Amino acid sequence: MTDADQLTSTARLDDLVATHQPVLDAAVLAIRARLYWAAFKESPSTKIWGASAPADGKAAFERLHGHDFALSTPGSSGFVATERSPYGIALDVRYPHLTSDGIDELMDAASSAMPAWRDTGAARRAAVCIEILRHIEARQFELAHAVMHTTGQGFVMAFQAGGAHALDRALEAIAYTYEAMAATPSALTWEKPRGSGDPQRLDKTFTVIPRGIALVIACTTFPTWNSYPGLFASLVSGNPVVVKPHPHAVLPLAITVSIAQSVLAEYGFDHNLVTLAVEDDGAGLASVLATRPEVRVIDFTGSSAYGEWLERHAHQAVVFTEKAGVNAVVIDSTSNLAAMAANLGYSLALYSGQMCTTPQVLLIPAGGIEVGARRTSVDEFIAALNGALAELLAEPARAAAILGAVGSEQVLDTLEAEAKLPGVVIESRSLPHDDFELAQVRTPLVVKVSAADTARYGVERFGPVAFIVETRDTAHSFEIWRALTETRGALTALVYSTDPVIVDAAEQIAIDSGVSISSNLLGDVYVNQTTAFSDFHATGANPAAGATITDAAFVSSRFRVVETRRPSG
Amino acid sequence: MTDADQLTSTARLDDLVATHQPVLDAAVLAIRARLYWAAFKESPSTKIWGASAPADGKAAFERLHGHDFALSTPGSSGFVATERSPYGIALDVRYPHLTSDGIDELMDAASSAMPAWRDTGAARRAAVCIEILRHIEARQFELAHAVMHTTGQGFVMAFQAGGAHALDRALEAIAYTYEAMAATPSALTWEKPRGSGDPQRLDKTFTVIPRGIALVIACTTFPTWNSYPGLFASLVSGNPVVVKPHPHAVLPLAITVSIAQSVLAEYGFDHNLVTLAVEDDGAGLASVLATRPEVRVIDFTGSSAYGEWLERHAHQAVVFTEKAGVNAVVIDSTSNLAAMAANLGYSLALYSGQMCTTPQVLLIPAGGIEVGARRTSVDEFIAALNGALAELLAEPARAAAILGAVGSEQVLDTLEAEAKLPGVVIESRSLPHDDFELAQVRTPLVVKVSAADTARYGVERFGPVAFIVETRDTAHSFEIWRALTETRGALTALVYSTDPVIVDAAEQIAIDSGVSISSNLLGDVYVNQTTAFSDFHATGANPAAGATITDAAFVSSRFRVVETRRPSG
Repeated sequence: MTDADQLTSTARLDDLVATHQPVLDAAVLAIRARLYWAAFKESPSTKIWGASAPADGKAAFERLHGHDFALSTPGSSGFVATERSPYGIALDVRYPHLTSDGIDELMDAASSAMPAWRDTGAARRAAVCIEILRHIEARQFELAHAVMHTTGQGFVMAFQAGGAHALDRALEAIAYTYEAMAATPSALTWEKPRGSGDPQRLDKTFTVIPRGIALVIACTTFPTWNSYPGLFASLVSGNPVVVKPHPHAVLPLAITVSIAQSVLAEYGFDHNLVTLAVEDDGAGLASVLATRPEVRVIDFTGSSAYGEWLERHAHQAVVFTEKAGVNAVVIDSTSNLAAMAANLGYSLALYSGQMCTTPQVLLIPAGGIEVGARRTSVDEFIAALNGALAELLAEPARAAAILGAVGSEQVLDTLEAEAKLPGVVIESRSLPHDDFELAQVRTPLVVKVSAADTARYGVERFGPVAFIVETRDTAHSFEIWRALTETRGALTALVYSTDPVIVDAAEQIAIDSGVSISSNLLGDVYVNQTTAFSDFHATGANPAAGATITDAAFVSSRFRVVETRRPSG
Repeated sequence: MTDADQLTSTARLDDLVATHQPVLDAAVLAIRARLYWAAFKESPSTKIWGASAPADGKAAFERLHGHDFALSTPGSSGFVATERSPYGIALDVRYPHLTSDGIDELMDAASSAMPAWRDTGAARRAAVCIEILRHIEARQFELAHAVMHTTGQGFVMAFQAGGAHALDRALEAIAYTYEAMAATPSALTWEKPRGSGDPQRLDKTFTVIPRGIALVIACTTFPTWNSYPGLFASLVSGNPVVVKPHPHAVLPLAITVSIAQSVLAEYGFDHNLVTLAVEDDGAGLASVLATRPEVRVIDFTGSSAYGEWLERHAHQAVVFTEKAGVNAVVIDSTSNLAAMAANLGYSLALYSGQMCTTPQVLLIPAGGIEVGARRTSVDEFIAALNGALAELLAEPARAAAILGAVGSEQVLDTLEAEAKLPGVVIESRSLPHDDFELAQVRTPLVVKVSAADTARYGVERFGPVAFIVETRDTAHSFEIWRALTETRGALTALVYSTDPVIVDAAEQIAIDSGVSISSNLLGDVYVNQTTAFSDFHATGANPAAGATITDAAFVSSRFRVVETRRPSG
């Protein structure tokens, strides 16, 4: 870069800071207030995006099929294709193939990219990160198709959770990190009065420095939503980021990384600040990367077993995990059986229960519950839930949009195994998909078991399987729920009761056992959904997660501060 | 507690919040500005404390000798005395003796104390913590004698570093934690607009919850200064704190814990929120405590080997460590040889070099340095340093006040071993102590070694041993300094140069290698001292420490937040 280029690049960066400062300021206010606020549009309406946006996005997605993805990864050798669409269409997108042989080269490239990015400072890093988000937003339809065809989410969900909401979570993480970095002044003159004579006087500076290379280990179900907060919190802190997607959900992150690289390069930074590490299925690359001395920050979403392995073995890094849990609903009483059943039915059906926030255990007294003044049996509750599910999923196109497709053999195996065991009260149905004949579409299976049968309901059964657990009474339900949360972990909890004393008691147990709780959801707010800038995702206070998305604890150890002191004069 | 008592207690707590709010607010402003500010008085002048304060404090300290310390520790059995004064006087203070047999009981007692402390909220916890600090301040002379006679610090240093500065660091930690807890609103009504109809509306609350039991593992040299930040950050977050002092420096923490217990009890809280775990010398209690599932936060100061053991084995906890390093001074040139020598001499002599911040390696070009326009040889520098030390330590009472006493056999062994090896350029002298004839008082040993002799200078030699390392030139000095920092770690760094380009280069290396740096200290600011509310202690960015005292990263993962959501209405 010549001096003139450098000047232009600096001026352009300062323009970018000015451009994005209003949204950054608004985001910082939003994380303090935690009222409703969003920077990205969740509706795929053509009124917002223009008439051609849906078709253009789909075409852009389809152009990627069967090609080498245009991205280079230092240390990679050849290409690898590891994805299949849960909807049954061929993707055959090929990515630069990284094995453990190439990791030295990748680490070197990422490390070399760091100093200039560090030296540009927090404000410019934040502006470049927000610019990346805006470029992703511009390709939100294309990204939604990529999310849909790797995760199995329905299109609208993929557009929202995989696009707008993921972008809002990313911006939330950037706002927290920016605020944390800005908390220490960059320079000052310190004066300490003395009894006699001049004060002691020192010029001090405080420089934010990155921790090292950050590793993001992503999952199959929410490749963007779950990884954007860590990715952008690390990047805005000055750390180069290596993105290690799950081999079954590479494309959304490949698009993300390629956009990040092009924006970084456009503003004069090394594109290897964000790299994509694609392994062949089962190659175990994550463990090799996670234990490299250069890797100092790790964000992981996935199984409890592997999250715990990382927590125990990646000593050189600060590790943020989102693992698995057993989410419960305590049903004590309700004012509206149909509304409760509809709300629960939607939560069970959405994305075929393949959310880490989906309820798995519905605890209900065997003697039934009060609905208004009327005693209602467990069978009546089951009938209401069955009716709600039937109505929700009656229309095939709507059913497919809500359920999405099941992409994982393991989920299908779990479903099949549970369906054969005793206690099935609502059968899982296989539905046809109008657009994708090979898609595996399943409605939720609901099984009634006894409170003693923890071997069945007390471990995570990922996918469209829920257990109705009959208890002696609500106190017994509380006891089981608390034990599940404390031993298995939980990302969500929900209580239905018309008695404020019971709701208060449930909230107290939630506080004791460290899980966030919703109560009496009867409308279109669902327990498995959280809103960026207002709700926290996970608490970090029970075994289901080692971190919260997104708060100060999630961001403030991603960077350090170096101080200099010089005598003033 | 009766309802009337409860009311009184609540009213008294609210009074306490009002009393301490001004200092808390000022502390929060101070951490944001990081200008000079202090809440505690560092001078032991009788003009401040009253004519009888010194004698009263000494008498209070002496009354403790030969007695069972008035404190109960759940699970303890019998008493144990493990201290000896580096000044040679008998202490024989006996503490409740804890072995691994009693840990279940201790954990239960600490856990039971937690809910009421959590439920009182952040503002009241902060007020009670500040009240504890004020009660400690009222016993600052007594505490100073306790620090002096366990650590070997001189009295004034014990009063300042062990008293006022430790209290300021505690308040700084409380301020950071309070600000972090207050960052999330406690309750709000969330409204999300919808295209048609009423908005979605939820009442949300956010409750700060503790992580669990916090463990503070303290060291012999700075039992209060190094442990107060973690202790008070954990306590104000809602965590019960188990204080595990080093068996050789129990008394300052026994006084601290007993004050904390009495203030907690006075305001209606369980005194077992802060407990003292005293083991017999070498019993290994820290490892048993550190791996208990109830222990979720650990603060440690001590050896690198044990700090790394904690980082690798206490998986269930978030671990903050301050370990050892090799601190270096790069001497390139100076405007004033005598002032430089005096400044360095003071840093080497203070507390006989028994500070984790004391320089160990002085890197100087073999061809000498420019002083003003005059070339000055290494021998001339050594002569100047020798002269500065001789002058500083000429008067026995002053020498003893600065040097303190050496309490550890290990330090005496290191000193003796190095004194026998080649290269000694300034001999260590044994000085008499006017007040304590058994005190081991030693002046610094300075050894000149070659740059290749990393086996001698490149590992921590704790105590009054410094190495002058002859290098080819300043670039070579920089190279050695950077390698030491990156591989061995460092808590401080110092450069002398009259060339601004060299100072800039040194600061750039400091930023690259993650160590804070001072330059051209020629007056009475010393590299081994930091000021609360302005300087950070350690960076957490090199092997010498896993954390910074005190910043947001040091506090924000000591608590979690639980959210509740209820439909509004």
